[in-house]
Amino acid sequence: MNILYDERIDGVLPAVDKQQLLQALQRQLPDLDILHRPEELRPYECDGLSAYRTTPMLVALPRHVEEVQTLLRLCHARRVPVVARGAGTGLSGGALPLEKGVLLVMARFNQILDIDHSARLARVQPGVRNLAISQAAAPHGLYYAPDPSSQIACSIGGNVAENAGGVHCLKYGLTVHNLLKVEILTVEGEPMTLGSDTLDSPGFDLLALFTGSEGMLGVITEVTVKLLPRPQVAKVLLAAFDSVEKAGRAVADIIAAGIIPGGLEMMDNLAIRAAEDFIHAGYPVDAQAILLCELDGVEADVHADCERVSEVLTLAGATEVRQAKDEAERVRFWAGRKNAFPAVGRLSPDYYCMDGTIPRRELPGVLRSIKELSEQYGLRVANVFHAGDGNMHPLILFDANQSGELERAEALGGKILELCVKVGGSITGEHGVGREKINQMCAQFNSDELTFFHAIKAAFDASGLLNPGKNIPTLHRCAEFGAMHIHAGQLPFPNLERF
Amino acid sequence: MNILYDERIDGVLPAVDKQQLLQALQRQLPDLDILHRPEELRPYECDGLSAYRTTPMLVALPRHVEEVQTLLRLCHARRVPVVARGAGTGLSGGALPLEKGVLLVMARFNQILDIDHSARLARVQPGVRNLAISQAAAPHGLYYAPDPSSQIACSIGGNVAENAGGVHCLKYGLTVHNLLKVEILTVEGEPMTLGSDTLDSPGFDLLALFTGSEGMLGVITEVTVKLLPRPQVAKVLLAAFDSVEKAGRAVADIIAAGIIPGGLEMMDNLAIRAAEDFIHAGYPVDAQAILLCELDGVEADVHADCERVSEVLTLAGATEVRQAKDEAERVRFWAGRKNAFPAVGRLSPDYYCMDGTIPRRELPGVLRSIKELSEQYGLRVANVFHAGDGNMHPLILFDANQSGELERAEALGGKILELCVKVGGSITGEHGVGREKINQMCAQFNSDELTFFHAIKAAFDASGLLNPGKNIPTLHRCAEFGAMHIHAGQLPFPNLERF
Repeated sequence: MNILYDERIDGVLPAVDKQQLLQALQRQLPDLDILHRPEELRPYECDGLSAYRTTPMLVALPRHVEEVQTLLRLCHARRVPVVARGAGTGLSGGALPLEKGVLLVMARFNQILDIDHSARLARVQPGVRNLAISQAAAPHGLYYAPDPSSQIACSIGGNVAENAGGVHCLKYGLTVHNLLKVEILTVEGEPMTLGSDTLDSPGFDLLALFTGSEGMLGVITEVTVKLLPRPQVAKVLLAAFDSVEKAGRAVADIIAAGIIPGGLEMMDNLAIRAAEDFIHAGYPVDAQAILLCELDGVEADVHADCERVSEVLTLAGATEVRQAKDEAERVRFWAGRKNAFPAVGRLSPDYYCMDGTIPRRELPGVLRSIKELSEQYGLRVANVFHAGDGNMHPLILFDANQSGELERAEALGGKILELCVKVGGSITGEHGVGREKINQMCAQFNSDELTFFHAIKAAFDASGLLNPGKNIPTLHRCAEFGAMHIHAGQLPFPNLERF
Repeated sequence: MNILYDERIDGVLPAVDKQQLLQALQRQLPDLDILHRPEELRPYECDGLSAYRTTPMLVALPRHVEEVQTLLRLCHARRVPVVARGAGTGLSGGALPLEKGVLLVMARFNQILDIDHSARLARVQPGVRNLAISQAAAPHGLYYAPDPSSQIACSIGGNVAENAGGVHCLKYGLTVHNLLKVEILTVEGEPMTLGSDTLDSPGFDLLALFTGSEGMLGVITEVTVKLLPRPQVAKVLLAAFDSVEKAGRAVADIIAAGIIPGGLEMMDNLAIRAAEDFIHAGYPVDAQAILLCELDGVEADVHADCERVSEVLTLAGATEVRQAKDEAERVRFWAGRKNAFPAVGRLSPDYYCMDGTIPRRELPGVLRSIKELSEQYGLRVANVFHAGDGNMHPLILFDANQSGELERAEALGGKILELCVKVGGSITGEHGVGREKINQMCAQFNSDELTFFHAIKAAFDASGLLNPGKNIPTLHRCAEFGAMHIHAGQLPFPNLERF
């Protein structure tokens, strides 16, 4: 079975006459905004992972579900692939367009349809921004928990497609844990409801299956999310360490002590210095690592937990433990963390952000190995990540204008992901597979497992027209990948030239 | 597509020579315990839903994964269906055997393989009892949260297969929310790992898809669950009401007030009286309804929440609000609730336990409708349920020896489930679909949706040999069901004679 298109789809797809398709769409959907001129298409050539770029054939910007439905039917009939996207902030190239495909931009579906405070749910269109849901729920004392760093811009439909995470996922779970229901259109434009407004749904759990499927199983037209009561108070502790290994062990100790922080984040020296230079958060610039530990809940509870966490941190060898003395300092501590990526970006012309997950107990060892790999490849790596979840985000610094540096960065990134798999982890925590990590899926899964994925894809989309070339590699690709790995003795990481 | 066997499978399956199969199994697996004599098979003729009974052809009791693998391969080659079960405590007939099938009893896989307190996980064999996990984790201050009423007996493999719930699911989620990884064997005996020890897995979420799939997608050989820190304290409030509607509204009010109780349970007058006669829990026997609300966490937090919940209950019209004065009284309050089913069983020769879920806001209206239906059908209904989740368990009292009462009980039960679907709920909360509610699946899902379920089943098990006739109805069955529904003007609920 090999029903998924490869990313080389543009090469093997039958030539679609762009003008014919455009005219058919304009005829059937006279009110639909369609972009087709090169200068209009250019802004849509990539998502948040700018290393991969392809100019789409056409960009459609519908406002009504009926338009999406008609478009899907027309494309299905003409065998034209469709890539849906929301705000396009994804970091794995999951919404990367195709030269011979239509990019379906759902950003105009931006209405909050219902906030039901007694049922604690919000029913929204897919283009609604993540943060807008919490803002709309705030008058009821409620909020939507998953908080990707891009939450001011990213859309909930994209969050569902990538099973997005964030700082608070340690305590409150990923997108999949905070969803009740999604309305979708299948590749043939048929509407379907996955999940329900209640506790459980009978039959197979199609909602969970759909979440994180990266636009390959259907197009989201409505999302119902759970809302949570806003915690009364939140306090943050900052702990400094003279080695990353000690900080890594402290993370495991906090969790083992029976405490579930709202967030538990780690930054290494390179990231600390970069953030401090940029934001002036008050970080100790000589520390080899810092931990930021947020505790949220009711006053007394948070107070007691702060004391316990301080003790654990001290026992784990922290050279300093500070509690943000007021809300302004708390916000400043987090501002440093939340701006760490752009801060590190100031140190280097380019950086490559990885996303892998490991069991927490492996943190000290993996951090040590990353340091060794960094020296071996001659590239600096900054570590800024969701330590409590074991969700690492190594940032590899390089200069694409220096010959060979891009290739070295890719090779180093691949090594780090392989290391994650080797210690029992996985190649993604919250960014998804997308285009970026499709080769590493061959390391994570064997061909039997991939065959299952393909069969599930076929159950929803036998035509293979929805977002081909992402998330699930073809067996053929993995065979090639494996062969390259074995014979050439080099690491065959994504060839950035192709897209 | 119609690849699933119907429950009439025994009628349409090719005749399997029991002796030949037995000899082949004995030859290939000389150490495997196989039961084949009628008197040995009889104890396995039903699960916890005793209304459905079928004597299996053979019962296999393996101890090693290799035995399960060989058995599956042999059965697959000979086209013999296999029904796996754990402790057989399920309430929907999900593990009901087949006359021409092998019942694969996984109860001997009862080893706890690992308790990792720093990673907060337990790796166990599928036959380990639910409560045994919490007992093993207790020395580390941890426990496994989902707590079905049968937790002393039910096995974790069965919990995964049915996505089991319990009193504490309001706060801590269903089985699917507390799982990290399962090891399975496919219908062809191939091992597969679903999920991982870390936060997220790339690709489609096969773990969630598998959870609640009722043994139709594979046989579970190992389960890794999340463990939670045991709450410092737990307090319980008992509130009495002079109407079930008021109690129903109070439930919605508590949730809307931003409080997440550990458990929030409701009993109506019939259940209160039955439980009080049986357990002497100290319940107010004149109340039309009581709520039991447990608050757990750290001392100060629980104290504050108890005060807030008391206020909400009083405002909602509670005639009395009592806090259990000590641990002995708290345990007594819960003993009444946990023994409510057998207590109600003392009032009537037979009872039929339903399991449906509705949005919380619909509780008062649905409780009123159940009362009206009860009068209309001339059968008493006791309500004992997870009110916080909107997970209803109406118990319909009847006497199977009185002509027509069983049929009336079934018809009334069907009406109640249809009512759940009508108000936006679903036909199961935590018991699963199994054999019992397979017809109601036709009311819950349309043929497009069922076709997806069939395609997913086919992706895992194209042979259809794993637990045929449960969970997902054939389109043919639904067509018949619909036709009966329309033409005969009567409710075609499960014909209990067949199994």
